[in-house]
Amino acid sequence: MAVRAAVAGASGYAGGEVLRLLIAHPGVEIGALTGNSNAGQSLGSLQPHLMPLADRVLEPTTTEVLAGHDVVFLALPHGQSAAVAEQLGDDVLVVDMGADFRLKDAGDWERFYGSPHAGTWPYGLPELPGARAALEGSKRIAVPGCYPTAVSLALFPAYAAGLAEPEAVITAASGTSGAGKAPKPHLLGSEVMGSMSPYGVGGGHRHTPEMIQNLSAVAGERVTVSFTPTLAPMARGILATCSAKATPGTTAQDVRTAYEKAYADEPFVRLLPEGQWPATASVGGSNAVQIQVAYDEAANRVIAISAIDNLTKGTAGGAIQSMNIALGLPEGLGLPLVGLAP
Amino acid sequence: MAVRAAVAGASGYAGGEVLRLLIAHPGVEIGALTGNSNAGQSLGSLQPHLMPLADRVLEPTTTEVLAGHDVVFLALPHGQSAAVAEQLGDDVLVVDMGADFRLKDAGDWERFYGSPHAGTWPYGLPELPGARAALEGSKRIAVPGCYPTAVSLALFPAYAAGLAEPEAVITAASGTSGAGKAPKPHLLGSEVMGSMSPYGVGGGHRHTPEMIQNLSAVAGERVTVSFTPTLAPMARGILATCSAKATPGTTAQDVRTAYEKAYADEPFVRLLPEGQWPATASVGGSNAVQIQVAYDEAANRVIAISAIDNLTKGTAGGAIQSMNIALGLPEGLGLPLVGLAP
Amino acid sequence: MAVRAAVAGASGYAGGEVLRLLIAHPGVEIGALTGNSNAGQSLGSLQPHLMPLADRVLEPTTTEVLAGHDVVFLALPHGQSAAVAEQLGDDVLVVDMGADFRLKDAGDWERFYGSPHAGTWPYGLPELPGARAALEGSKRIAVPGCYPTAVSLALFPAYAAGLAEPEAVITAASGTSGAGKAPKPHLLGSEVMGSMSPYGVGGGHRHTPEMIQNLSAVAGERVTVSFTPTLAPMARGILATCSAKATPGTTAQDVRTAYEKAYADEPFVRLLPEGQWPATASVGGSNAVQIQVAYDEAANRVIAISAIDNLTKGTAGGAIQSMNIALGLPEGLGLPLVGLAP
Amino acid sequence: MAVRAAVAGASGYAGGEVLRLLIAHPGVEIGALTGNSNAGQSLGSLQPHLMPLADRVLEPTTTEVLAGHDVVFLALPHGQSAAVAEQLGDDVLVVDMGADFRLKDAGDWERFYGSPHAGTWPYGLPELPGARAALEGSKRIAVPGCYPTAVSLALFPAYAAGLAEPEAVITAASGTSGAGKAPKPHLLGSEVMGSMSPYGVGGGHRHTPEMIQNLSAVAGERVTVSFTPTLAPMARGILATCSAKATPGTTAQDVRTAYEKAYADEPFVRLLPEGQWPATASVGGSNAVQIQVAYDEAANRVIAISAIDNLTKGTAGGAIQSMNIALGLPEGLGLPLVGLAP
Repeated sequence: MAVRAAVAGASGYAGGEVLRLLIAHPGVEIGALTGNSNAGQSLGSLQPHLMPLADRVLEPTTTEVLAGHDVVFLALPHGQSAAVAEQLGDDVLVVDMGADFRLKDAGDWERFYGSPHAGTWPYGLPELPGARAALEGSKRIAVPGCYPTAVSLALFPAYAAGLAEPEAVITAASGTSGAGKAPKPHLLGSEVMGSMSPYGVGGGHRHTPEMIQNLSAVAGERVTVSFTPTLAPMARGILATCSAKATPGTTAQDVRTAYEKAYADEPFVRLLPEGQWPATASVGGSNAVQIQVAYDEAANRVIAISAIDNLTKGTAGGAIQSMNIALGLPEGLGLPLVGLAP
Repeated sequence: MAVRAAVAGASGYAGGEVLRLLIAHPGVEIGALTGNSNAGQSLGSLQPHLMPLADRVLEPTTTEVLAGHDVVFLALPHGQSAAVAEQLGDDVLVVDMGADFRLKDAGDWERFYGSPHAGTWPYGLPELPGARAALEGSKRIAVPGCYPTAVSLALFPAYAAGLAEPEAVITAASGTSGAGKAPKPHLLGSEVMGSMSPYGVGGGHRHTPEMIQNLSAVAGERVTVSFTPTLAPMARGILATCSAKATPGTTAQDVRTAYEKAYADEPFVRLLPEGQWPATASVGGSNAVQIQVAYDEAANRVIAISAIDNLTKGTAGGAIQSMNIALGLPEGLGLPLVGLAP
Repeated sequence: MAVRAAVAGASGYAGGEVLRLLIAHPGVEIGALTGNSNAGQSLGSLQPHLMPLADRVLEPTTTEVLAGHDVVFLALPHGQSAAVAEQLGDDVLVVDMGADFRLKDAGDWERFYGSPHAGTWPYGLPELPGARAALEGSKRIAVPGCYPTAVSLALFPAYAAGLAEPEAVITAASGTSGAGKAPKPHLLGSEVMGSMSPYGVGGGHRHTPEMIQNLSAVAGERVTVSFTPTLAPMARGILATCSAKATPGTTAQDVRTAYEKAYADEPFVRLLPEGQWPATASVGGSNAVQIQVAYDEAANRVIAISAIDNLTKGTAGGAIQSMNIALGLPEGLGLPLVGLAP
Repeated sequence: MAVRAAVAGASGYAGGEVLRLLIAHPGVEIGALTGNSNAGQSLGSLQPHLMPLADRVLEPTTTEVLAGHDVVFLALPHGQSAAVAEQLGDDVLVVDMGADFRLKDAGDWERFYGSPHAGTWPYGLPELPGARAALEGSKRIAVPGCYPTAVSLALFPAYAAGLAEPEAVITAASGTSGAGKAPKPHLLGSEVMGSMSPYGVGGGHRHTPEMIQNLSAVAGERVTVSFTPTLAPMARGILATCSAKATPGTTAQDVRTAYEKAYADEPFVRLLPEGQWPATASVGGSNAVQIQVAYDEAANRVIAISAIDNLTKGTAGGAIQSMNIALGLPEGLGLPLVGLAP
């Protein structure tokens, strides 16, 4: 019997993406769709690509509207999820696509988000060591940030195998949908087409502590992360270029072997054949991750590069993958492995 | 039991798209994949987005390789399909995504394509009057051109209802994938990004006689078509802006009613609510068609605009929709109705 | 001695473009720069590409600030120019890049803009018959709309030569900068990249009466215009595809000759050699116009296509070209004829 | 009196860009234009944006054609410049926009380019310490690579001030024009739009030894460089994200001061105000460089980011800047400081 799912925040990009995937999910029936300023409007006017749901009307985000569902996806601004989740009760699976429950360290949370820490939920990145066990049967899921998804998958095998020093340097290019649907001048098409630009440089991006948390857990020691995000002239996709000094004695073969081992059985991660490099277009609209790794002998660094779709594997696809695990469904149910290209 | 399908020309854009859709088609098992210059290469190196087929190797396009399948999709340069089809025999469903069997008039064929006419097969645009009946049980399908798909769906209801004079004026913007994967200087990213440009102006585009054929059949009289295609800085999509003078007495309500009637029961065509206009991004990767229509009183013209994905509904999705009909499967089996946006 | 110029509305796209050109204009010294909500901010933070003016600070748009200049460029929302112009006095050259003084017919103005008609100023499209004479020595200039610039230059030679019937059908694709810098959801990069979409379909676009005015004046009879604008995934550029039925007896040679004659001596208009078609990228950032024309014998239509940069020739470049004429400077002074490509 | 300049390789992107700039250069008269496979074709058909030169016809690249000019710009595939330069004689200023004479170390050259080392010419990056003196009066100029231009300008002040450890980590995103105009499948618009992808990962990119050469010279010790180039969906621009561990005791203020000092008097380099970050769109078509720098305390790294136009400052603009110095002309003559935005 189908699980009944509600989506709070259905007018934004994350909400729209989770609906795009749920429409094709054979185990889910779509229930309430909510918005705030957009309540009362038809989904067809807000998300014209979701044609099967065009005549659905957004309701306000209230406990009454969200009650009576088996799963509730929260695509809300950070700071709002805790209140909603509390009222839904412990028998409802709440999947938070916001940041509220990702960080374990309350100090990190407060420093980067400027508000009191709400707690920590099982972390929805199944490929990380130990993550699947924590998700099975859970009624709460904290979906990772899009950058931490791309970066953690690119780098954790090197740390797990002891091949990388604990100082990671990361540059990531993101499509503009990562910045959301609220209109701001610097996100206008006229501004972003033909332009690459960085932001949050110097350690200030909120996804940094999440990367540190993930990589440090795998490394067994504190890993520092120098993270520079850049905005790229494309709607979707993250390309994360990650590197760290190699530990003494590391060889190119060690690196290759570590990644082959880490991803031998992962359904959504493809370690590319040597010589082929990830491209965000290849994973567009899919839950797949493309990874390639190299050892630069002259610079003595391990370089790992990943490509994901920030809205799919980086947000809504990762959310559904984790939901599948939590509900005991096949992990890949309803999730595309094929990208839309060209 | 699954139908077994081969794809000849699997390294190009049309071949890649038919594979993208077939991977998700519950009634099809993918058999041989062929190429010519690319035979011997892995699909993963040629079509990196088709991850489930990454390790498949392209075979040469020969009768031996294509034999033993229930369906063969041909994504070949025009002029090559007839020879292949003849050798496959009458019990194999041959779906030609090229131009060879679209035109009924041998003179038109020879004038526009410069080679002898190969014949005419049932035409794979099910939404046209009478088209479904011709496709049912057929062993041969001529998939329409991408522009004629967009244009015929935009305009035929006006002609069917007698609301438009037989002189259509059409401008269409196409994504660059419509020009194929063979590298040419004017198709380089450096050239097309930031640029709109026309081509084939003045009646010379090969899709023109196909539009005339479709619209004239519906109108019951010869319809002339002034068609200007333009290349747009996007990978996928066609936006067709079509107009014709209104016949005497036509009102805005007549126009709206004609389109509502024509598309009331079509699973893949959505006549948008008044005031909303098609966008190619809304149908990206889907088999859907978005249509809107207006009556310009001052100019006394009917203006109909359609948006499709040139590779999906305009080529491979239309091919599979017609295949489903020919095989007696549900028409929409395996075909996405949801676009990838943003 | 250099002319001293002020720009009212310097934070928007039209204001920024006029500054980009004025910086390189040997006969102009840049005076006051004003904004409204942005007054007090540095130009470097608002227009980071205008590096030589980065430390200039925007002042409020008041008569006091604008007084004491030889030329004042107005880049204001429509309806605001008349009040400013009145206060500046008759010895100041006022160049209005808004719509307020373009239309001669008060009824057209009121119908399309919904406010009282402010009057008519000499029209800043020097290539139109008679336009230069009206601009010489004038103290008021109404800069044409971007679409009317592209469309009028594409079609007027056909009407001037009596080769086209008075029913024009026009589709134009515009870059997103034409929609301005005020952030709106449908103009976000995430929405426009990869998408073509129409707007203002059916006769409602405000530039329609301006096209009718221009073409009718040349034709000597009322020309109707069916105009469909579309938004293209590029920051700049307009490609206008314009056509009309040919008058009886018109030949391809007649058409070619008419355009060669019309543009033989125009410094900014290039009629391309036969077989070559305009591309917006070729005129990016320049004041140039590329035009090509064809006669479609089967459809009996004249098809004329023009490419301009909507911000340069379509707005700020056209404004400076007209300013040069009004001031008795060489018409092309400070205006690039070379596009930025690729 | 104007200097007479020839351009060998006028049909490619570097050749086209040097012509775009020379057309506006008040001290240069354009002489012979040559190509190889394109000899005999008009420039208007090959570079339609260079309208004032549209009727010029390309000649073959021979000594006879190139003789009799004061300056010859070489935009040739690497390995071809030495032979041409030898025949031109020592009284002609030869500006090589290829790689042949950039590297001092013959071993590096042979390892990265696989051919015998041709020698070393004065290096055309005037902003580097000592570079201007070497260029003054020189008859040979080696124009830097586009990536080394962006990277060296971003990082050298940190090394000059002793603030960075000699292990640089660099990711750079380049527009597709950096890959040239020869058509290759992965450079098709259909492939690059919507996609970010790396290449030459792991130390193999040919620009790496050039960066090492520049930074090591400034640092006074061997600097290793881990360089990852990525291809971005835009035609022009490089955004270089560069970092290195800070030397002990370095403060944020030290870093800021070092960059302020380094660029206080540079006409083409703008160190942005704190809080503003470079964007490639802001420098499009200009010879300007935008730079910003940060000190990441948690990761203890200096992060310097630069934006240039790869074809202008990164190739043809840098070439003309160096030519101006060599000829004793004002350094900025004919070079735009204003970018084309939006």
